[in-house]
Amino acid sequence: MHVASTAVLISEVGPRDGLQSIKTIMPTLNKKLWVDALFNAGIREIEVASFVPARMLPQMADAAEIVQHAKTLNGLTVLALVPNLKGAEHAILAGADKITIPVSASAAHSLANVRKTREEMIKELKRIVEFRNAHAPSIKIEVGIATAFGCTLQGLVAEDEVIGLAEQAALAGVDDVGLSDTTGYANPSQIKRLFRRLRGAIGDKAGAAHLHNTRGLGLANCLAAYEEGVTSFDSSMGGLGGCPYAPGASGNVVTEDLVFMFEAMGVRTGVDLDKLFRAREVLQAGLPHEAIYGMVPEAGLPKGFDAYKENLR
Amino acid sequence: MHVASTAVLISEVGPRDGLQSIKTIMPTLNKKLWVDALFNAGIREIEVASFVPARMLPQMADAAEIVQHAKTLNGLTVLALVPNLKGAEHAILAGADKITIPVSASAAHSLANVRKTREEMIKELKRIVEFRNAHAPSIKIEVGIATAFGCTLQGLVAEDEVIGLAEQAALAGVDDVGLSDTTGYANPSQIKRLFRRLRGAIGDKAGAAHLHNTRGLGLANCLAAYEEGVTSFDSSMGGLGGCPYAPGASGNVVTEDLVFMFEAMGVRTGVDLDKLFRAREVLQAGLPHEAIYGMVPEAGLPKGFDAYKENLR
Repeated sequence: MHVASTAVLISEVGPRDGLQSIKTIMPTLNKKLWVDALFNAGIREIEVASFVPARMLPQMADAAEIVQHAKTLNGLTVLALVPNLKGAEHAILAGADKITIPVSASAAHSLANVRKTREEMIKELKRIVEFRNAHAPSIKIEVGIATAFGCTLQGLVAEDEVIGLAEQAALAGVDDVGLSDTTGYANPSQIKRLFRRLRGAIGDKAGAAHLHNTRGLGLANCLAAYEEGVTSFDSSMGGLGGCPYAPGASGNVVTEDLVFMFEAMGVRTGVDLDKLFRAREVLQAGLPHEAIYGMVPEAGLPKGFDAYKENLR
Repeated sequence: MHVASTAVLISEVGPRDGLQSIKTIMPTLNKKLWVDALFNAGIREIEVASFVPARMLPQMADAAEIVQHAKTLNGLTVLALVPNLKGAEHAILAGADKITIPVSASAAHSLANVRKTREEMIKELKRIVEFRNAHAPSIKIEVGIATAFGCTLQGLVAEDEVIGLAEQAALAGVDDVGLSDTTGYANPSQIKRLFRRLRGAIGDKAGAAHLHNTRGLGLANCLAAYEEGVTSFDSSMGGLGGCPYAPGASGNVVTEDLVFMFEAMGVRTGVDLDKLFRAREVLQAGLPHEAIYGMVPEAGLPKGFDAYKENLR
């Protein structure tokens, strides 16, 4: 077992994963204000946009403008999702520091999500890496293995195929490869087993945990990943995004709750919870008619929480 | 660290903790049907009632009748909560197999909850143990240290006081002493630290984890307790009970979600999830106007879940 770290990176995916999952289009100004508020709360990596054709995702039509704005925040890693080489070119041109590429472990999901087989996606990865190496060598490339813990289309996903695909992505030259529980199927034992295998297979290229809370296990799964040595966690403010089946059953792990868990454990996130709650108000102002989730914001911080944390030092 | 077990006991507290927390009074017949359905799903310990004066908790006026009914279920441990000797006498007379007594670690909560100081509660415990030893030596006595992880009235609760109180309870002659996160304040590190200390202090008398989901950490905290060697978990069907602050922000850990987590991990609970969902329908039929929670019942089991579990064997 890996020794758990005393600090973790919270990578906020709401402006991309959250906003592309809802019908409402957040105005560009509100997106900028939200990104600013997240940064002011101490978030140091934000997935700000997805570079896909605007006719497919009109919510992301202002991707380049959002990237350029986010670049003005000193110390922020500006992350953008891209499904292919064309998207990567646009993201890099816009100024993204890092791009993230989804590669589905489920054959069925790969075709449904990006209209490519897994093998075609690995080839696309190689083209993206070549482009980066030739034109923008300082840009980081991350791969997230989607449906790594099971798939709503095909059910089981073989763990050997997940790890095999991660190895191929690492060999293609990307900087790190994380695992995504796209469907909210994962359990803590599976999380530990797969992240252990991932590290065994690709070493320090083992990347972030992108986990969903569809079945209520989001934080338990994050805890399991943390205990297995994972130090980078994707989450979404207000739980926006993913597949919301039911009230409270948000898709992504809720940033506010995740930060609370780690801070309460004495694991540093660099995030100020009070300022994070203010960023939540900025989010809500930009989406006045959307329900946003989060247990800690609803219940409030425990009485004496600051004193409790002080005692941990 | 304790070696985690391959099986756990799920102790359903809904008929007591859940039903006493809501205004609606479930008819006696529906209570019996619900207890039957829980038993049929494989639940083998149920906290069926609280023995307190009916003028204080009219929801529990039929406590003796429910205990007597539950006693007809072969193999079920019938548990009743009692706040004092008089309640213990009534519960034992009714036929309970086991009684559970709340002892608050927070001085403020002790006075508010049972109108006794902590010292007075330890004296009451001794009287209950003497009564049991003299009249019903086969009855088990459990203590739950309430507000063990923090208190909404006084904030911090000193860990030394929690462990000291558990030691006094064990010395008083009770069979086991568990820890309760009455307020939903706990975090996974704290859970591990306190259950480790508890076992160090009272050995095999270390008992169940009674955890709440108020801040979304319920399952993560159960996972932490499980990893620390805890094998008995209180939970409530539909998350009934505790202090519901917000939609989805139920009090107790949801039985359905907890059973799913353990079963998905390959940890045996003895509970059949499909039958548990049917018991949930029986609960809802008995409380047609109450909201009941649960992420797994809303989202459904993962596709291929049976095959996944089969692979774990």
